[in-house]
Amino acid sequence: MRVIKLVIAYDGSNYHGFQRQLNTPDTVQQKLEERLAGIFGHPLSMNGAGRTDTGVHAQGQVVHFETTGTIPTANIAQAARGVLPDDIVVLEAEEADERFHARKWALSKTYLYRVYQSDQPNPFWRNYAWQIRSELDYAALQTALTFIVGTHDFSSFKAAGSTAVNPVRTIFAANCTRQDLSALPVLIPGGQEQAKLFDFVFHGSGFLYHMVRNLMGTLLNVGRHKITVADMAAILAARDRSKAGKTAPPQGLYLLAVHYPP
Amino acid sequence: MRVIKLVIAYDGSNYHGFQRQLNTPDTVQQKLEERLAGIFGHPLSMNGAGRTDTGVHAQGQVVHFETTGTIPTANIAQAARGVLPDDIVVLEAEEADERFHARKWALSKTYLYRVYQSDQPNPFWRNYAWQIRSELDYAALQTALTFIVGTHDFSSFKAAGSTAVNPVRTIFAANCTRQDLSALPVLIPGGQEQAKLFDFVFHGSGFLYHMVRNLMGTLLNVGRHKITVADMAAILAARDRSKAGKTAPPQGLYLLAVHYPP
Repeated sequence: MRVIKLVIAYDGSNYHGFQRQLNTPDTVQQKLEERLAGIFGHPLSMNGAGRTDTGVHAQGQVVHFETTGTIPTANIAQAARGVLPDDIVVLEAEEADERFHARKWALSKTYLYRVYQSDQPNPFWRNYAWQIRSELDYAALQTALTFIVGTHDFSSFKAAGSTAVNPVRTIFAANCTRQDLSALPVLIPGGQEQAKLFDFVFHGSGFLYHMVRNLMGTLLNVGRHKITVADMAAILAARDRSKAGKTAPPQGLYLLAVHYPP
Repeated sequence: MRVIKLVIAYDGSNYHGFQRQLNTPDTVQQKLEERLAGIFGHPLSMNGAGRTDTGVHAQGQVVHFETTGTIPTANIAQAARGVLPDDIVVLEAEEADERFHARKWALSKTYLYRVYQSDQPNPFWRNYAWQIRSELDYAALQTALTFIVGTHDFSSFKAAGSTAVNPVRTIFAANCTRQDLSALPVLIPGGQEQAKLFDFVFHGSGFLYHMVRNLMGTLLNVGRHKITVADMAAILAARDRSKAGKTAPPQGLYLLAVHYPP
């Protein structure tokens, strides 16, 4: 059986997350399955590398599916453009190993979380970043991120109702960059002179449900001096969700890439 | 009577334009009038400096209205944040001359039109730029823009059904910048390596209905070598709408600023 691997980008603003659900048709997976079925000539059943929640975006979500369709792989992305809504784009399509599985074969994933900091809200960023007013202590954020890197029990940052059997994950890298939007050459409509964009990028072996958003809630407490870097380390060590900060909103989160064996 | 002047930014994606209409409640003006009424204690009737069509954005739309409300001007923007949807933001509020009129007092306006050029569509730009695949001849665009500057009869670029009495307008400046998105320090989710952003900025005494979008349709024909720069000059001179290119889509257009006497 032919197995197709797709790399997908989507703006999650108008979807109830990636994964197909019984109670709503508005998921990215259902849209992909329904709209691409005509290209392959039969109903499709896809597997995604990672769930994304309502409002969460993807630059490099990966899905796979089996097909008896004969469309040349090189034509799939173009054909998909003709049938998908413009908030979902097939970036790449390739024929994969017949044992390939988008989730099970994934070695690691990279997530981006964007924070837009300004005195004034910006209507053009409302679906694409967590907008905050307070200044952030960039040096403290950098230090706090070093505590996340490595293999840890991330129970303090799992979703409240999560029942993951093993809460241990390895974070290979956790970085933050800060951009002064007023200094960028690109004109940002709606941008305020004092606005800054903080991009947090996490690369890890895997992530517990809500883990990045829960980490972000606590990290911003460090950045706003509500807690210290030492407090952050203690929260991680406590392995207790109730010690950590609130869950950051979904619209700042992007699944950037899923990494597979070469 | 107290006259308030507001500077407004909005993402026009979810509105049927700025101006209040009888057949839909989803206009920026109606949203502003309804939501801000509570702050001022009575129904509001606003005047905007310029109409914007469905899907067109604003960074610096200006409105004025009369009020008997007593809220201090310094508190208006903050109070508005509490009642407006997050795609409309009051950037500035001030008490204006009691004869001030947002449209009649305007000396000039500045519009931005964004074009996103890439082999692949980008789901995050779908509401914020005209996405095209063809490469654009930047030098030809720069030359074509010089023909627009000055006082001209812009009949070739008015809306097909427009009945403006006087089609003469003065364009003080028309410029284009090109950004290579892959070279920008900011990480653009969904961005493709070869993507370029062309920002066209027009500053003029006034603009006919659809004039910027009609100019853009013809300018991109120059950029794509469908017509020459000389053809563009001839189209302007012809004063005939049927000679010009198609109307560019609304989502690339931003009302950046309205300028008043100092």
